[in-house]
Amino acid sequence: MPPMTAADGAKVVFTPSGLRGRVPIGDTVLDAARQLGVDLDSVCGGRGLCGRCQVEPTPGTFPKFGIESSLDHLSSVGDVETAYEARHGLAAGRRLGCMAKLGGDLVIDVPADSQVHRQVVRKRVEVDDLVLDPVLKLHYLDVDRPQLDRPSGDLERVAAALDAQWGIAGMRASPHVLDGLQDALRHGDWTVTVAVRDGAEIVAVWPGFRDIGLGVAVDVGSTTIAVQLCDLTSGAVLASAGRMNPQIRFGEDLMSRVSYVMLHPEGRVQLTDVVREALDGLIGEVVDQAGADRHDILELTVVGNPIMHHLLLGLDPRPLGEAPFALATDAAVTLRAGDLGLVVNEGARVYVLPCIAGHVGADAAAVILSESPHRSQSVQLVVDVGTNAEIVLGSSHRLLAASSPTGPAFEGAQISNGQRAAPGAIERVRIDKETLTPRFKVIGVEPWSDQPGFAEAAAATGVTGICGSGIIEVIAELFLADVISSDGVIKSRNHARVVADGRTFSFVLHDGPPAITLTQNDVRAIQLAKGALYAGARLLMDHLGVTAVDQIRFAGAFGSQIDVTYAMVLGLIPDCDLDQVSAAGNAASAGAMIALLNGASRTEIEEVVRNVEKIETATEARFQEHFVDALAFPHKTASYPHLARRVDLPTTGESAARPGRAGRRRKARGPTMEEQS
Amino acid sequence: MPPMTAADGAKVVFTPSGLRGRVPIGDTVLDAARQLGVDLDSVCGGRGLCGRCQVEPTPGTFPKFGIESSLDHLSSVGDVETAYEARHGLAAGRRLGCMAKLGGDLVIDVPADSQVHRQVVRKRVEVDDLVLDPVLKLHYLDVDRPQLDRPSGDLERVAAALDAQWGIAGMRASPHVLDGLQDALRHGDWTVTVAVRDGAEIVAVWPGFRDIGLGVAVDVGSTTIAVQLCDLTSGAVLASAGRMNPQIRFGEDLMSRVSYVMLHPEGRVQLTDVVREALDGLIGEVVDQAGADRHDILELTVVGNPIMHHLLLGLDPRPLGEAPFALATDAAVTLRAGDLGLVVNEGARVYVLPCIAGHVGADAAAVILSESPHRSQSVQLVVDVGTNAEIVLGSSHRLLAASSPTGPAFEGAQISNGQRAAPGAIERVRIDKETLTPRFKVIGVEPWSDQPGFAEAAAATGVTGICGSGIIEVIAELFLADVISSDGVIKSRNHARVVADGRTFSFVLHDGPPAITLTQNDVRAIQLAKGALYAGARLLMDHLGVTAVDQIRFAGAFGSQIDVTYAMVLGLIPDCDLDQVSAAGNAASAGAMIALLNGASRTEIEEVVRNVEKIETATEARFQEHFVDALAFPHKTASYPHLARRVDLPTTGESAARPGRAGRRRKARGPTMEEQS
Repeated sequence: MPPMTAADGAKVVFTPSGLRGRVPIGDTVLDAARQLGVDLDSVCGGRGLCGRCQVEPTPGTFPKFGIESSLDHLSSVGDVETAYEARHGLAAGRRLGCMAKLGGDLVIDVPADSQVHRQVVRKRVEVDDLVLDPVLKLHYLDVDRPQLDRPSGDLERVAAALDAQWGIAGMRASPHVLDGLQDALRHGDWTVTVAVRDGAEIVAVWPGFRDIGLGVAVDVGSTTIAVQLCDLTSGAVLASAGRMNPQIRFGEDLMSRVSYVMLHPEGRVQLTDVVREALDGLIGEVVDQAGADRHDILELTVVGNPIMHHLLLGLDPRPLGEAPFALATDAAVTLRAGDLGLVVNEGARVYVLPCIAGHVGADAAAVILSESPHRSQSVQLVVDVGTNAEIVLGSSHRLLAASSPTGPAFEGAQISNGQRAAPGAIERVRIDKETLTPRFKVIGVEPWSDQPGFAEAAAATGVTGICGSGIIEVIAELFLADVISSDGVIKSRNHARVVADGRTFSFVLHDGPPAITLTQNDVRAIQLAKGALYAGARLLMDHLGVTAVDQIRFAGAFGSQIDVTYAMVLGLIPDCDLDQVSAAGNAASAGAMIALLNGASRTEIEEVVRNVEKIETATEARFQEHFVDALAFPHKTASYPHLARRVDLPTTGESAARPGRAGRRRKARGPTMEEQS
Repeated sequence: MPPMTAADGAKVVFTPSGLRGRVPIGDTVLDAARQLGVDLDSVCGGRGLCGRCQVEPTPGTFPKFGIESSLDHLSSVGDVETAYEARHGLAAGRRLGCMAKLGGDLVIDVPADSQVHRQVVRKRVEVDDLVLDPVLKLHYLDVDRPQLDRPSGDLERVAAALDAQWGIAGMRASPHVLDGLQDALRHGDWTVTVAVRDGAEIVAVWPGFRDIGLGVAVDVGSTTIAVQLCDLTSGAVLASAGRMNPQIRFGEDLMSRVSYVMLHPEGRVQLTDVVREALDGLIGEVVDQAGADRHDILELTVVGNPIMHHLLLGLDPRPLGEAPFALATDAAVTLRAGDLGLVVNEGARVYVLPCIAGHVGADAAAVILSESPHRSQSVQLVVDVGTNAEIVLGSSHRLLAASSPTGPAFEGAQISNGQRAAPGAIERVRIDKETLTPRFKVIGVEPWSDQPGFAEAAAATGVTGICGSGIIEVIAELFLADVISSDGVIKSRNHARVVADGRTFSFVLHDGPPAITLTQNDVRAIQLAKGALYAGARLLMDHLGVTAVDQIRFAGAFGSQIDVTYAMVLGLIPDCDLDQVSAAGNAASAGAMIALLNGASRTEIEEVVRNVEKIETATEARFQEHFVDALAFPHKTASYPHLARRVDLPTTGESAARPGRAGRRRKARGPTMEEQS
């Protein structure tokens, strides 16, 4: 390369991208970044207002770039930067890229917070590193004034500015924007900030420069509605809130709400109204928490199971209550927030993720988006357990999904002393294998039941019942203590805690009052539920042609509460390396957040949902076979070698009769469950 | 060509198109038409329900086609056709194209009423022959039932049917359609009729087969709001209605309404509300007239001047009240009818035609669409006179538009005894040139004032004032009678009807009570108005580089009322062959109707509006020159050779001093005005 002269321009290298090239002397760093395709943010379009384009010029000799980089090769700090620093502060060594002009060769670092598509790490909802690139972006515009002899509409001059200043051509505008536009242009002295959705439509406008754009991610569950308020320009979660789904008064579980509509068709609108009101109330909560204005909310994403999806959208849920469980639509739905009765910015849109099938909803789609089995090289099993279990299996090669009718036993329903996971519920159980003495942990109470201060600590909540994770643990512990047989029978052990109850026995977990007892029927309910869960997973494995899975992820509240080892002891899931079995947290909410903060993820999940193979458990004979086999603990025929390496499984039951499978016990090695927990 | 065999298929010729070809034996006539690109209608998609595909097989020998056409070459009438005939009747010789199958060669006539893009001739609004091709079309669909093992949404199965049965792919749906869709599919036993807008979006859905789709064309004038109810499937006008614009209580003319908003910014919403309510009321009137249901209205078009355009859309009209007269948008606007408070089908959209400039509105665009100067080979001048005159000049080569500030004198405002064109107003005037005895015609009264029975007939209305056309005629008659000079002075003629009024004279047209008098100020007001109108037209002629125009069209109410010869006698318009000067009727309403019934016309007018050269009269020095020259009757400098051939113009005034121009009078030939009218 010949020696550089001023005529060739300045040689510039951007780090960390390494993008480099020559740019004309006198160009700003922002200009240079755009010419070289460097990811340098700007909302105000180079006017020194937003501070998003901060860069760190790096002086020194860079032999590998052939550059003598000097701070003198930038124009000195001028009035605009001084004013910005006075108002907002500017870290030492930083310059505004839109103001600093290149006078010679330079190495320039773009800090992470100045990158348009910067990585965002979520805190409250577990979202893996995410590229911030929402469908909704703010752009500051300098708009031509109207002129008498060149008639053109305000909107058309805004469109021209958006094209000239941001390269966004062919823009449309929501009709309501037109009115606000007139005022905004005149009050902003012909400068405005516009919110552009999908690079195609102006949905909101404000006078002058503005840097506030909020988004809301919504997870409408049968039991709980959860919302997260985000800053769309930074990706930060500003507030979160949740409340009980008020539809519960029309029916505790989903099917009873559908039954309510079947019996009271005119009541359907009530179910829709109350969930919309609750959502709007939650939006009020999060903006209050964040000290924000609900009219700055410009974009929302919604996930939910098919019935909640339909009820929120005002659709008839009845077809989902009976075969063939037809969805009104399985595509993503975009509508105006006002159409859902939400009081937010008039231009705000709601994006509802696609449903997969009649039992596998937008929540399952969101779980896929969050857990990304479709990008995995190894075979992942993702289960989200609620009234139904939604099961996704596969990898980047093939992905399958099904719903399995577990019933609500895992959520504590249809269990004698069962209850939701709420203060007062027993959530953890340990039973001494010799004495059968139980000890337990209650939600909202710090000490275990056998620790000092438990009685005092539990006075506030009481011990009111047992939730899903507690049920799993007490049954698993009793199975490991040989009180419950492999085929689910509570055996008489001539022990005070094992009491006769007609022709069957019950186990008294807590003397009360009230007494908390596990009955034979409770064990049967869990057997049926776990049989369905396992059979669903196994059916997908058959379809995929695999006999083992590489990872298992438990999504949802139940998945977060249960100890995965106990889940495997009871055979809820197929055998797997226990280190590869983990809770996914609220993956549905995380998926809603991803769709909120990254527009490309919407296209991605829509395509995945179109292509995922939907398996209907009800019509598959093999599902019934797997189900019957799976009623035993941990399973009648399947082996659990990974589990057996860690847990002393009882010798009872048929599995014990099969050497080399679960029956090949290794008493000598592996920790007991007590050590595990 | 070798002799045909059955293997080659049947040879079919469609008339009147002449399209021909071979089609497989056993195909229906509708199939054949589609294969050969023949314009044969169908709403039900070939199910024998709609009767739109009726054809007339034509037996006989057709040497030029090489065809022996025989009725035996069609399958015999089956159950479906018999059922259709029983329900709806079927003219002799006609068959349903979707049922009649080809068994051999045939000549088949497609009657005009079976063509999709058939010519429609409007009755109530004058629209020239128009190709019926609205943006909104109805399609009957046979939709797959949901299946348990193949999950798919109702909407997605509808989209698949639309693609398979009508070739419409990639369809979207309005969110509100989703709900109705569930019910419609189930009540229609998985057949529905959908309304598809722009070939891209389902906006409405009904169970089973349905053939009703209505449209409304709206002309929102400052004084009157007019609506036309149309059948979108036939193009028929079912009803029309008009009412006074209720905004009149906020200001008689447009500028006073803008002033009202300037003084009462909070009152803007009132102006918007009352016009929307009036429009909704008119929609109620037309559906009542037609015995229709307002929820069958699926599409509306709106035209109006810029201020009415803004007020109807809820936009701020104030920027239109002062230079630089900036529109909020000059593009066409499409929005939901519900957004304008109109109670019609929830999926109905309103298409508002584009505005041309701050003074030249969507009404002018509609006039262009109706009058089509942009398609003309010769130079057309189109004027639409209201408070402002909108002037369009040009041909297919170039088109120019301007607005000229005529003021409201032509509408009877600011005239001593002026009034709107309403019962009781003098609309026609003749004055005996010797005796100066006037006679006149009153709106709502059959006999002229000098005919028997006038007094009795006029008792109901009275003679209350004089409207725009009456003012033009009385001034022109007085000019021709040499009572008014070329420069507009009412001369004392020592005549009882010419009375002194301070330092000037007035002419008593009617003794009263009340007396109807033309004052000197009235003449001055008309001189100013006509000077502005003429100067605007002349300015456009300068820009176009022409000194004469080939045709002149007077649009609007005033244009329909006035006698164009009188308009030329006073010099409102440039000289032109009087046979080429005519009234265009309500061209704005006609344009709204065209946009309603023909989707391509929207693209056409949007492009014309973008490209029309907008001339601002206020900033052009030549406008003032033309204006001053144009104050005289008929004009100070311009000549009127065509007019002079027909009318005895007085010798007074400067024009008389110029031989070869207007002064070259031809007393011996041409009828007098009396004979003309």
